[in-house]
Amino acid sequence: MCKKMKAVVKDKPGKGAVLKEVDIPNCGPEQVLVEVESTSICGTDLHIYEWNNWAQQNIKVPQIMGHELAGKVIEKGERVENVEIGDFISAETHIPCGHCYQCKTGKRHICNDMKILGVHTDGVFAKYAVINKVDVWENDDSIPPEFASLQEPMGNAIDTISAGNVAGKNILITGAGPVGLLAIAVARAFGAAIIIVSEINDYRKELAEKMGADIVVDPTSSNLENVVMDNTNGIGVDFAAEMSGNENALKHSLKSITSGGSMAVLGLPDGSVDLNLTDDVVFKGIDLHGITGRKMFNTWYTAKRLLKEELVDLSPLITHTFSLEDFEKGMKLMEEGNCGKIILKP
Amino acid sequence: MCKKMKAVVKDKPGKGAVLKEVDIPNCGPEQVLVEVESTSICGTDLHIYEWNNWAQQNIKVPQIMGHELAGKVIEKGERVENVEIGDFISAETHIPCGHCYQCKTGKRHICNDMKILGVHTDGVFAKYAVINKVDVWENDDSIPPEFASLQEPMGNAIDTISAGNVAGKNILITGAGPVGLLAIAVARAFGAAIIIVSEINDYRKELAEKMGADIVVDPTSSNLENVVMDNTNGIGVDFAAEMSGNENALKHSLKSITSGGSMAVLGLPDGSVDLNLTDDVVFKGIDLHGITGRKMFNTWYTAKRLLKEELVDLSPLITHTFSLEDFEKGMKLMEEGNCGKIILKP
Amino acid sequence: MCKKMKAVVKDKPGKGAVLKEVDIPNCGPEQVLVEVESTSICGTDLHIYEWNNWAQQNIKVPQIMGHELAGKVIEKGERVENVEIGDFISAETHIPCGHCYQCKTGKRHICNDMKILGVHTDGVFAKYAVINKVDVWENDDSIPPEFASLQEPMGNAIDTISAGNVAGKNILITGAGPVGLLAIAVARAFGAAIIIVSEINDYRKELAEKMGADIVVDPTSSNLENVVMDNTNGIGVDFAAEMSGNENALKHSLKSITSGGSMAVLGLPDGSVDLNLTDDVVFKGIDLHGITGRKMFNTWYTAKRLLKEELVDLSPLITHTFSLEDFEKGMKLMEEGNCGKIILKP
Amino acid sequence: MCKKMKAVVKDKPGKGAVLKEVDIPNCGPEQVLVEVESTSICGTDLHIYEWNNWAQQNIKVPQIMGHELAGKVIEKGERVENVEIGDFISAETHIPCGHCYQCKTGKRHICNDMKILGVHTDGVFAKYAVINKVDVWENDDSIPPEFASLQEPMGNAIDTISAGNVAGKNILITGAGPVGLLAIAVARAFGAAIIIVSEINDYRKELAEKMGADIVVDPTSSNLENVVMDNTNGIGVDFAAEMSGNENALKHSLKSITSGGSMAVLGLPDGSVDLNLTDDVVFKGIDLHGITGRKMFNTWYTAKRLLKEELVDLSPLITHTFSLEDFEKGMKLMEEGNCGKIILKP
Repeated sequence: MCKKMKAVVKDKPGKGAVLKEVDIPNCGPEQVLVEVESTSICGTDLHIYEWNNWAQQNIKVPQIMGHELAGKVIEKGERVENVEIGDFISAETHIPCGHCYQCKTGKRHICNDMKILGVHTDGVFAKYAVINKVDVWENDDSIPPEFASLQEPMGNAIDTISAGNVAGKNILITGAGPVGLLAIAVARAFGAAIIIVSEINDYRKELAEKMGADIVVDPTSSNLENVVMDNTNGIGVDFAAEMSGNENALKHSLKSITSGGSMAVLGLPDGSVDLNLTDDVVFKGIDLHGITGRKMFNTWYTAKRLLKEELVDLSPLITHTFSLEDFEKGMKLMEEGNCGKIILKP
Repeated sequence: MCKKMKAVVKDKPGKGAVLKEVDIPNCGPEQVLVEVESTSICGTDLHIYEWNNWAQQNIKVPQIMGHELAGKVIEKGERVENVEIGDFISAETHIPCGHCYQCKTGKRHICNDMKILGVHTDGVFAKYAVINKVDVWENDDSIPPEFASLQEPMGNAIDTISAGNVAGKNILITGAGPVGLLAIAVARAFGAAIIIVSEINDYRKELAEKMGADIVVDPTSSNLENVVMDNTNGIGVDFAAEMSGNENALKHSLKSITSGGSMAVLGLPDGSVDLNLTDDVVFKGIDLHGITGRKMFNTWYTAKRLLKEELVDLSPLITHTFSLEDFEKGMKLMEEGNCGKIILKP
Repeated sequence: MCKKMKAVVKDKPGKGAVLKEVDIPNCGPEQVLVEVESTSICGTDLHIYEWNNWAQQNIKVPQIMGHELAGKVIEKGERVENVEIGDFISAETHIPCGHCYQCKTGKRHICNDMKILGVHTDGVFAKYAVINKVDVWENDDSIPPEFASLQEPMGNAIDTISAGNVAGKNILITGAGPVGLLAIAVARAFGAAIIIVSEINDYRKELAEKMGADIVVDPTSSNLENVVMDNTNGIGVDFAAEMSGNENALKHSLKSITSGGSMAVLGLPDGSVDLNLTDDVVFKGIDLHGITGRKMFNTWYTAKRLLKEELVDLSPLITHTFSLEDFEKGMKLMEEGNCGKIILKP
Repeated sequence: MCKKMKAVVKDKPGKGAVLKEVDIPNCGPEQVLVEVESTSICGTDLHIYEWNNWAQQNIKVPQIMGHELAGKVIEKGERVENVEIGDFISAETHIPCGHCYQCKTGKRHICNDMKILGVHTDGVFAKYAVINKVDVWENDDSIPPEFASLQEPMGNAIDTISAGNVAGKNILITGAGPVGLLAIAVARAFGAAIIIVSEINDYRKELAEKMGADIVVDPTSSNLENVVMDNTNGIGVDFAAEMSGNENALKHSLKSITSGGSMAVLGLPDGSVDLNLTDDVVFKGIDLHGITGRKMFNTWYTAKRLLKEELVDLSPLITHTFSLEDFEKGMKLMEEGNCGKIILKP
């Protein structure tokens, strides 16, 4: 094997990244080396590319970008059991410490000393990548690599929708970015009755319908609460999933939920938000759930089964496929929002 | 209005029933009088018809049979609010006392002093029927009366499947009688991954596939546990729903569940059953749920939405439709098992 | 029986109330008439007395004040079953409509068209009061009337603490007003490990210790988060109960909870609050529960048993007892905050 | 350090065991070596000593017996992090595989390929013992070694009682052997209202009262269901914990639970049991939970806090303390049942 490979590298502070030749990473005793077959771009990758505040505080350059992948194991460390050379895998991207209160009580996904693949370690926008054994996820061979790579963000959608116990319920999803779109498909698969989606981008409004939304509302031209009430006999939705990080979406969601209902928040508001907790949460007896990451590995089993049994079809979501060389095209599309998920092929 | 109507009446002890002319029932101050549009035959009706042990102990003759219905309100008592003449309704069939510990703690469906429509009171196999206001369920007008009448047994299926939190899970359903068939459709709607069904009757095996089963096993010719293990990577199912009342089905179900999984039991074994609790429940950390009735009215909202949004299609399940005059044909088919649900039209 | 009685009446807009002679209320067909043995003052009564914004919008004068009571049934309506003359009762104070989505799905305590005793109807600061049959709660005869009257606010404490599943957990309670004090006692009874309480009033700080707090913090002189971390090995609490309505208490609570923990909010912030949802709820995977009222009647069974089995001792909480004539003394003490619960005796 | 130590060894098939000198075990790279300060005898140890059917099938001789311990770490392997020489530890005794479905979904305690300390590996009735790093539990220094050693069986009691959400509930515990006695204390700490215990052994009946039982019933001389109904206003208990493995206890428990209640089964019936599932589980809507082991490590945190905050007092439970030399006295007492927990001191 040649010792060099091409990779998308965040090589210095400031906007941008470069495709360059780097060393193929070494495989440690508790790691596997993967030949990458497919990767996909996440909003986090865009933040790193754009070098926003969060990226400036969290990323040390130079670093290989990317964390969503599918590929084949071509080398394994001496203390890696239950994984074989040739296995088709994806990776959980949270690297838990294993020792904290959360790790010791079945909540590794919210580890108190978390590292993240492609954020705190070299990532996967490359020909090869190393994955810690704790993060290895064996894929079902019937799942195409492009779909397998999407299991990671799909896991966020699964955990968000699972918080609502949506079977037979009317629900609202605010924000139809890639994870919001995945949430629509997951909610449809899980038996949600009426799925109302709010989104402002025309491209994504159309995708929302393709992924299974019953009603797509543009909150800049319609009153979201009125639409919800009109479609639920004046009751409101049983559950709302906030996937946009927008403060107004959050507020309108809370007002759209019926008393005794619940809400899951995955979207990350920029800074603090102003909430009428008294009227919108306390008096209504609302349960509000903060969602982060994917459960290791309950969520992954769900993702695998949904894809293997074809209960969720990711085809409409994958709107663009580029080679690594063209990663900048992907970043540009992500900035504009006129895309679903973008696949990068090494 | 004429004061007489035709009704299927259990007129004396022993097998059988008669179609005869009886008085149209009086509508009490907390009741509504319904013009029946559709009814359907339940296994309980068959027990009353056949006059089995349970019927002999519970039924006082003469009594109008039947409890599953859909129809229009044509009269209402003076203390009936929120129901109007002309409303299209179905009925919960459990009549709770309202005063016991269960009724006072949100569990009216397992009231400690329960009466049942068509068991302890005159039923609905007739042109008209009275329904207590506590049991009135307003249907969605878009739902055909034949489907609306099936919401009651569908509620049993919903409660059984809901106990398993089946989204993305592999599951087993033992017994594809009418409620088992409904459970298949509900589990499919709720996002179950692989649905394995065991059933011995050929007619119902075929129906099971039509309702959405992935794999249908005849336990008399195949080893159920082996089939389960072969289709779940040797893990077993996460959840089993016992809908047959058969002791062997119960035992094989428990052995087919993976450790930490759960089981819901709706089927009623005749007499006691012999279980290896130590190996099959305790060591495996299994949760076993007894299911009775439908939650008032959480379950009904779910049923209504599943039908209104067409997430469950009951068409394949309705295999026969008769007029009240031909009710004996329906009873005979039920005895043979070569049917799904049978509709009776007044 | 004489037809007049003394009652504390909110007779006109503006601060204050009067003790005056009024007609003994009529007992409707679905009501009972109670001879009041003990009542107690709630913060809501104080709001009505002080005529704050909320009161101005919700109270129609003239109206008898008060809603916490214990007494004997001396008359019952014709459609009241399962209550007998002479029964020793208290009352749930929420009067649900019985027809809305919440009422029909086991959530009457958050009815969408709720009326409240002593807010929308004449209350109980009187010699006699009428109670709707839906609200009648039969007390255990072994419970003193003063304690029985406190079951209503104790129910708020029970629902708040129950949301945290506190057995063996370290917890924080912010605010040691009467309901906060009850929450301390309930948490102690339910097996909380370390109970940290924040409170600024000296009188109530002392009461907090008497009710079972392990550590009482004055957040104006100590850093609450530091105290929490110092006493939980740097982990934080598993659960926080916000009982003060104070925005800072809310913020510090969220920062004091360990990732994956939960919070219940009963305190009512005045206006909207500014929360860092991203860092304090989403990234930490926190569950936040709005708490209103008491579950009908699960909560009441719990309250009754805790008092009957003497698992909670309310003696230290009852700091003052007055006759109805001296109700203004009680209101004044409530305004100052130098009290626990104040009993009014007709 | 000398290379030999005294240990209680199951040296050959058949009843009995011997105290003999053996090599101090080697500490592997992922193990710690512990100087044992206190151990305690479990029913499993007695089974091995008596060489019952289970032991004959599971134990390979020669093997050091025992699994409950507390002691100091005196050596650690090279890949053991977060444990230091001198740490005061106890040990989870389940050694999970880490790779199976259960291990990968947060249920290591019911691992599909479980090994058990002192069953499949050398145990702790010795001066020194090796513990796998996955099983190390750091004790709080304030807890006496005798109590710390009891955290393991106490964990079984915690998981059993936790299944019932017992705060404010009336409960039944059948069987007051050591774990049943621990369950009484845990239920008391967790806020159970009335605790009814059934037990036939006089010595243990007395211990049951000391541990906090309200009512102790001898089922050979009293009708358990009648006692339950008499003490719960005819309602029955909300929860029953079966800790005896006795078939009759199981049957009477099911009949003593109110409809909608739940049951946890930790006791292991010998062979299969005959249950009236129809009447006692299905119609009553009962939830039945099989309990095995302790959750890693949620349960241990609870145990530690209950002991550290002195919410459970284990003093009455420790009825005998022997040196390792006198282990046969302990086994004899265990056979007779006239004991609580027996401490062995190396």
